[in-house]
Amino acid sequence: MSKSSSLTVRATPVQPASVSGPLVVHADSLLVQTDRRIELVDITDTVVEMVRRCGVREGVASLWSMHTTCALMINEAQQALHADITRVLEQMIERDAEWMHNDPQHSDCDRMNADSHLRAMLLGHSVTLQIGAGEPVLGQWQRVIVAEMDGPRARTIRVQALGVG
Amino acid sequence: MSKSSSLTVRATPVQPASVSGPLVVHADSLLVQTDRRIELVDITDTVVEMVRRCGVREGVASLWSMHTTCALMINEAQQALHADITRVLEQMIERDAEWMHNDPQHSDCDRMNADSHLRAMLLGHSVTLQIGAGEPVLGQWQRVIVAEMDGPRARTIRVQALGVG
Amino acid sequence: MSKSSSLTVRATPVQPASVSGPLVVHADSLLVQTDRRIELVDITDTVVEMVRRCGVREGVASLWSMHTTCALMINEAQQALHADITRVLEQMIERDAEWMHNDPQHSDCDRMNADSHLRAMLLGHSVTLQIGAGEPVLGQWQRVIVAEMDGPRARTIRVQALGVG
Repeated sequence: MSKSSSLTVRATPVQPASVSGPLVVHADSLLVQTDRRIELVDITDTVVEMVRRCGVREGVASLWSMHTTCALMINEAQQALHADITRVLEQMIERDAEWMHNDPQHSDCDRMNADSHLRAMLLGHSVTLQIGAGEPVLGQWQRVIVAEMDGPRARTIRVQALGVG
Repeated sequence: MSKSSSLTVRATPVQPASVSGPLVVHADSLLVQTDRRIELVDITDTVVEMVRRCGVREGVASLWSMHTTCALMINEAQQALHADITRVLEQMIERDAEWMHNDPQHSDCDRMNADSHLRAMLLGHSVTLQIGAGEPVLGQWQRVIVAEMDGPRARTIRVQALGVG
Repeated sequence: MSKSSSLTVRATPVQPASVSGPLVVHADSLLVQTDRRIELVDITDTVVEMVRRCGVREGVASLWSMHTTCALMINEAQQALHADITRVLEQMIERDAEWMHNDPQHSDCDRMNADSHLRAMLLGHSVTLQIGAGEPVLGQWQRVIVAEMDGPRARTIRVQALGVG
C-alpha cells in the first residue's frame, strides 16, 4: 500500500484574473464504477482533463453526484487517510442501528441503506470548483473524491463548466 | 405515514450541452413557514417551478438559506428517512450539553440554540444546483430539503439562477 | 470576552433581480494568518469589501480554501459559539485515536494531522455566495468563517466573483 498522497500540479500557478465576455456553458457526464460498499475514488485527473477541454478559461465547474447515497468532497488522496475516513463514517453513523428507513413497517425501500443516506448527507453531494487559466483551482494536496456510500454501483457525476472562453 | 419517497421526474433526460450567449441573472426569494423545532421541508417542486420560469436554459441555480440555524441539503424525501436524520442529528449534537452559547455568563443570545447552530453547520447553508434544458439537474431520488433546526419560524431561501437564456 | 455576535448589515436590503449582459469574472486571493491549531477567523468584512470593489452587481462569489485542513463555513460569529464549535469537533473526531494517516508504517505524512483532515471534511472547503446589488447576500447573523484545523499557518483563500457588471 502506498504511503504517499497524490499531488495536484497546475500548468500555471493560480493567478488573479479579470476578464469579460459572452458566457460559455459546457456540460457533460462522468461515469464511475465502484467495487465496494464504501469506496473513495479520486477523479481529479479526469476532472482536470474535462475542464481543460471545455473551452472555459475563467469561471466555475460544478460537479454534481446524481445519487443520494454517493457524495463528492475535497480531501487528500492517500490510502491511509481514506481508511481513516471510512472508519470515522462507520463510527459516527452505525450501519445496524434500528433505522426507520430500514424497517419494512415504515419504508418501502429494500436496500437497507439508511446509513448510506446519513453518511452521504454529512459529506455533501456536490463541489463547485473555480476555473482559472483553463484549469481547476486546486491546492497542491486537494483532490476531488467521489465517496461511494452504497456500492458497488455505476455512478454518474455531472460536470458543468461555466465562464468566459 | 407514507412509506414511499417522492420522485423527481424531468421533462427531458439530462443531456450534454454546449451553449454560449449573454449572461442572464434572475433572483427571487422563497418563504418557508416551519411548524416544529426540527423539521425537514421538501421544496423541490417549488424550486423546479421557479427555475422553469426564470428564463435560464443552461447554468446554475444557487439556493441560499438566509439563516444560521436553517440548513439546505439534498437527500431522499421519505418520512422514515427524515425521522432517522432527525435522530442522528439529535444524537451527534446533544441539545442539553453545557454549551457556552446557551450560558448567559458568556452569551447574550436568549434562544438557547447552540445545538441548532451546530447541527446546521454539519449540513451546510446552501446548495448550488446545475440547470440543464431549463430544469434543475437532479437524480431520480434527489430532493431539495430545507432543514429547520430552530423552528417554528418563517424562513427565507434566496434562489438565484444564472446562465444562458 | 464579548458576549455579542457580529452583525452583517447590507447597504441595501436583498431584493429580487433580473439582469442580462456580458459575463464579468474577477478573481483574487485573500491571505489569513492563523495563530492556534484550531481557530475560527471571521473574514466577512474583507469578503464584503472585495465583492464591492470587483465590479459584479448580480452573480456569485466563490470562496475556496486552497488547503485540505482549512475549511470555510457560514455561521454566527460569537466567541461563546466558536468555543462550542471547537469542542464539538474535538469530541466528534478524536485527535489521538489510532489513525492510519498518523502511523509511519502506513503514511509518509509527518504532520500527524488525521484529525485535521477529518474535521475539515465535515465542514467543507468552499462557500459559494450570491451577489445582489454589488454585495454578498448574507442574513443578519451570517458570517463567513475560515475554520483552521491545523494551524498556526498562513492560509490562502481564493475569491472569485462572476456575474453581470
